[in-house]
Amino acid sequence: MTEYPETPRSAPASPVVGMVGAGQLARMTSQAATGLGVGFRVLAEAAGESAAQVVAGTQLGDYRSPDDLRAFAAGCDVITFDHEHVPGDQLAGLEREGVPVRPGSAALRFTQDKLAMRERLTGLGIACPRFAPAGSLAEVAAFADGTWPVVLKAVSGGYDGKGVWVCANAAEAKDVLAHGIDLMAEEFVAFDRELAVVAARSPHRQGAVYPVVETVQRDGICREVIAPAPGLAPGRRAAAQQLALLIAKQLGVTGLLAVELFETGTGLLVNELAMRPHNTGHWTIEGARTSQFEQHLRAVLDLPLGSPAMTAPAAVMVNVLGGDDADVYDRYIHVMAADPAVKVHMYGKPVRPGRKIGHVTAVGDDPAELGDRARRAASYLRWGKEDGS
Amino acid sequence: MTEYPETPRSAPASPVVGMVGAGQLARMTSQAATGLGVGFRVLAEAAGESAAQVVAGTQLGDYRSPDDLRAFAAGCDVITFDHEHVPGDQLAGLEREGVPVRPGSAALRFTQDKLAMRERLTGLGIACPRFAPAGSLAEVAAFADGTWPVVLKAVSGGYDGKGVWVCANAAEAKDVLAHGIDLMAEEFVAFDRELAVVAARSPHRQGAVYPVVETVQRDGICREVIAPAPGLAPGRRAAAQQLALLIAKQLGVTGLLAVELFETGTGLLVNELAMRPHNTGHWTIEGARTSQFEQHLRAVLDLPLGSPAMTAPAAVMVNVLGGDDADVYDRYIHVMAADPAVKVHMYGKPVRPGRKIGHVTAVGDDPAELGDRARRAASYLRWGKEDGS
Repeated sequence: MTEYPETPRSAPASPVVGMVGAGQLARMTSQAATGLGVGFRVLAEAAGESAAQVVAGTQLGDYRSPDDLRAFAAGCDVITFDHEHVPGDQLAGLEREGVPVRPGSAALRFTQDKLAMRERLTGLGIACPRFAPAGSLAEVAAFADGTWPVVLKAVSGGYDGKGVWVCANAAEAKDVLAHGIDLMAEEFVAFDRELAVVAARSPHRQGAVYPVVETVQRDGICREVIAPAPGLAPGRRAAAQQLALLIAKQLGVTGLLAVELFETGTGLLVNELAMRPHNTGHWTIEGARTSQFEQHLRAVLDLPLGSPAMTAPAAVMVNVLGGDDADVYDRYIHVMAADPAVKVHMYGKPVRPGRKIGHVTAVGDDPAELGDRARRAASYLRWGKEDGS
Repeated sequence: MTEYPETPRSAPASPVVGMVGAGQLARMTSQAATGLGVGFRVLAEAAGESAAQVVAGTQLGDYRSPDDLRAFAAGCDVITFDHEHVPGDQLAGLEREGVPVRPGSAALRFTQDKLAMRERLTGLGIACPRFAPAGSLAEVAAFADGTWPVVLKAVSGGYDGKGVWVCANAAEAKDVLAHGIDLMAEEFVAFDRELAVVAARSPHRQGAVYPVVETVQRDGICREVIAPAPGLAPGRRAAAQQLALLIAKQLGVTGLLAVELFETGTGLLVNELAMRPHNTGHWTIEGARTSQFEQHLRAVLDLPLGSPAMTAPAAVMVNVLGGDDADVYDRYIHVMAADPAVKVHMYGKPVRPGRKIGHVTAVGDDPAELGDRARRAASYLRWGKEDGS
């Protein structure tokens, strides 16, 4: 029999990670923080947001307000992000005051300004789609040089297909230019498929990289992720992983870096970058020894990184998009009875048609079988039937 | 490009699970609730408790107070438990008011009254250690009938070795009786090893059972769990699993049931029961398709149960006990650098020497190698060295 002394020693002095934003990425990061036993707070715009529903350390405030950001940072040992929308000058201000901001404003800029990202990556000799600023129809026409379609992109602020327009001709480009936002032009890449790779880098400069995955997009929204990317040539796999580690190093990323790639007959082109947990890494919750959420926490806390090795030969993640009927919970019973081994993750978000409200992961041996199972579950959660994905 | 309609449909109407108690079991259950997208609240005695630190839906109150319990239940769709200390008449009162209490008071009684448990199980023909009420030294002496040691147990309220005394002779028994608490006597079982099995049962009467594990106890505290139990004869494995399902059914358990067993040369004897997530099931977080915490939520919500299949051939969990130095976080860096694939779970609890403050799990192929790795990590987290476990 063991008697505990009456007076405990003081609680371990664990650091507090503050995440700006309270979407599903912050929600899933909170699960990892709870496991690691580190403090976790989110800066939410509203109490009903995905992470704010579940995180005890939720502070309400506006991420665009220097005062709100400073007040939030005062209770945290390190600041990181659920999204890339915090103005860079605010972050630089925090940094000047000595707040550890990870990734730092200098790195994050390359996710906030796609033109700066393209210029930087091409400057490093990294293959990207051909691009140019697109301030006027004349510039777009000169860029196209008679070859359409041309892709117009908002230089900042886009997500889930918002802020990207594939223009079949000058008339369509003119309509997009009429929005009056900062745009850039890119060549339309006739890729074979899309790949993604998530790496982590710590202030100590340790790097770790997950297996390269194939991503399936529809209407600009990621629908499905297959890990590892089926049939990827070993040389190309290594090239993609080295690319992610190189970009993380050259851009000075601390935390996660997700690199979205086009695979073409001749090689790999960088499409987008993100410096936070990423939709293409959700499969790691069950499919890797260390989830991307725990990895992000380890990286921003400058702890040794966790193993990115897979727990099984394959994992497939399928996003659950909102359908016409908001009562998703009523459909759990069918999905769980039909497949007791599929993992359902729901984000507590209001159902908007087409919006990501959850995801489903299946882990095992055969990616085709796993994909069927995850798609069926996700489709049923969306529509109440299995053929409407 | 996808435009979201401006007005979202209302948030899905997910049920709210209320867990009475805010220890590490509630903390880990909260992680599963966040993943499933169901509401989760805890009734905590103090804001600093393990689960209260992280759960947004924390309500402070006394689980012995009918008013506090009723107020807590008013915001929940189902009530369940982190511990078995809620007085049965309070629970029966909630049930009379129509609150779904899972497990119900009639089942939970058998974890609150060990004498009732022994009588009920032996009535069902289930093998238990020989036992008797122990109201006086004469009763203990008559039970011993000259054969010592005899085990004296508190009829209710024991945990982690508290409330269990192995008495080598009548003089020692007399000292224990002097405590003035309700006691029972049990034969001292010279077991070969200890096993445990966790089952789940839903109100719909669906059952699911995890692989049988071996548990290693020291000073009455679980130190280590090996899944599956090495070298367990298939017939005995099946018997243990059937036993758990049978007890869950016969006692009307809804939620999880953990059965702790003695394995002897002649068979299995039931040692203890618990009706909640259990230390012997922590390995399921990484080692099974469905963690015991998610399984408990599914069961109390009457959702179809998840697959209890293992994700790998073996998993070993080692508890982290408090040591002399409270600064556990300072030791993460070594543990994580030494073994990037071991999973560290810390509970945010004040460090008391000998108290469970976290656990470490290793998943893979060889239980001996996994045990070495998990023990080294747990020992280092406790002592700052690897040989002091």
